[in-house]
Amino acid sequence: MGEFDLIARYFTRPAARAALGVGDDCALLQPAPGTQLAISSDMLVEGRHFFADVDPLTLGHKALAVNLSDLAACGAKPLAFTLALALPRVDEAWLAAFSKGLLALADAHSCELVGGDTTQGPLNICITVFGEVPVLNGKSQALLRSGAKAGDDVYVSGTLGDARLALEALRGTVPLPLGLLAQARRRLEQPTPRVALGQALRGIASAAIDVSDGLIGDLQHILRASRAGATLETALATRLVAACAHPDWSGTGIGAEKQLEFTLAGGDDYELAFTAPESAREAVQAAAKQAQTPVSRIGRINADPGLRLLDAAGALIERRYASFDHFA
Amino acid sequence: MGEFDLIARYFTRPAARAALGVGDDCALLQPAPGTQLAISSDMLVEGRHFFADVDPLTLGHKALAVNLSDLAACGAKPLAFTLALALPRVDEAWLAAFSKGLLALADAHSCELVGGDTTQGPLNICITVFGEVPVLNGKSQALLRSGAKAGDDVYVSGTLGDARLALEALRGTVPLPLGLLAQARRRLEQPTPRVALGQALRGIASAAIDVSDGLIGDLQHILRASRAGATLETALATRLVAACAHPDWSGTGIGAEKQLEFTLAGGDDYELAFTAPESAREAVQAAAKQAQTPVSRIGRINADPGLRLLDAAGALIERRYASFDHFA
Repeated sequence: MGEFDLIARYFTRPAARAALGVGDDCALLQPAPGTQLAISSDMLVEGRHFFADVDPLTLGHKALAVNLSDLAACGAKPLAFTLALALPRVDEAWLAAFSKGLLALADAHSCELVGGDTTQGPLNICITVFGEVPVLNGKSQALLRSGAKAGDDVYVSGTLGDARLALEALRGTVPLPLGLLAQARRRLEQPTPRVALGQALRGIASAAIDVSDGLIGDLQHILRASRAGATLETALATRLVAACAHPDWSGTGIGAEKQLEFTLAGGDDYELAFTAPESAREAVQAAAKQAQTPVSRIGRINADPGLRLLDAAGALIERRYASFDHFA
Repeated sequence: MGEFDLIARYFTRPAARAALGVGDDCALLQPAPGTQLAISSDMLVEGRHFFADVDPLTLGHKALAVNLSDLAACGAKPLAFTLALALPRVDEAWLAAFSKGLLALADAHSCELVGGDTTQGPLNICITVFGEVPVLNGKSQALLRSGAKAGDDVYVSGTLGDARLALEALRGTVPLPLGLLAQARRRLEQPTPRVALGQALRGIASAAIDVSDGLIGDLQHILRASRAGATLETALATRLVAACAHPDWSGTGIGAEKQLEFTLAGGDDYELAFTAPESAREAVQAAAKQAQTPVSRIGRINADPGLRLLDAAGALIERRYASFDHFA
């Protein structure tokens, strides 16, 4: 099967909302009047972002999910995406499963595949995603990293740490009962981008980011962009690990120290971390309810720069947690 | 140097026309009222699209040039691009040269780097480019592959075959004097996207494509999309090889057969192939003059499907030429 047959068989569907989809030199998109286009690009590499033996169906899901998560963090509504794919060889079973996982998530968010590229090379998946953000009275409604103010609450959606827990169990560095591994592994391999929550938080959240490299590292992007600091009650955050609620957790031999590390610096969570004024607490919970996504208040923005972590007793935690860096 | 320092040092510049550039979860673009966004994505892989020892400055140029060429084929005006980059390691000299070549071409076309991704992995460059196309009276002015009509003339811009000539010389399969190699190599490594010509041809050309995989293969995309055929006078096309005009050409020992092959099926030319009604011949030449880009008429669109190649005597050429396919 050649390059053009491959595109036709697995990646071409009639354009729905795009003015022009797959099959010409460019795709054409016409954003609605009074909107801006939000754009994000993520590249996934074998051995770095996924194991060589990963199920291609979940890989297709994840490749788009991490991009949708960036749209969510901006409060953008998904519109379309391009897919550039380097493949070592044409493996039809792999392509069928990969495109199935990819397009199922795309359909769930009405996010259309409008173009891209395929080439021979070490497995590499590069998706660029496009979303729509309203502009009201000349002001963009996009959620940015730069709007956090001293006194704002700090929130995180869903749960943290499960993806890292699965990664470490798969690497063999922590023991994990099979049922718990399956649950955590779903979070690692098929993350849920918080697309509805991001849109519901427009006009409410003062700043937002998606948690991809670990809560602490990503929150610090908000702090730097907002020229502010924050204090986190880590006891609130660590209660968020979904696995904690699992009856088998206590028998895993994973101590409180590792639990804290996975929660605060785990990475691959694809939850939203965001800030909002104290006056917006009811609005935040209403947005969470509307988006059917739990959110938890875990700290507060301070005028003093830096991120302070408090333990359950309110004492400062001195240990430093490294955020994920692709070149560190 | 970590991932974020790398982005800050080599790839972050203040947003000029974009509503928001590098540094948040998404970039924000606001297309002008009455325009559509044209989008294209290309992935370049070491060993497939460039040699491992390629000058990173020319690689930066080429990575963007091949994307701008897709915008040119649609008649779109470049606006912005995202860059996703997988690097085996952080090599500051390489990054400085690559970003210099990339951003010089971007500046020449006022095409702004608005975001992207960096990760560790086998060298892979994925660029997604955004351009603007006017919509007049509800009708997109984009040049598509699908508008060619029987009787239309077939044109190609600039010259063809030089990139392939350089590639074969570098591979050692054809002999080439050094001066001629340098000239051909510039075409291979630093192609000129025909951005001004594409825009000048809006409202004049009936169909267009950029020649990346070879004239014959790419022209057939127009024919399939337009449900038409074509007859090419190859004697006109082969006169286009820039190297032909070179005084040393006659001494290279490269025969007429190879010359024809490089011209018709060479690949990596990044010229525009397009069609226009006979009544538009003056308008085509005026557009070419305005864009300071020579164009040559090399054939005609027929109602009969298929592509027919005629030699200098007007006889049908039976030999088949393979177009470049990444998986063939």
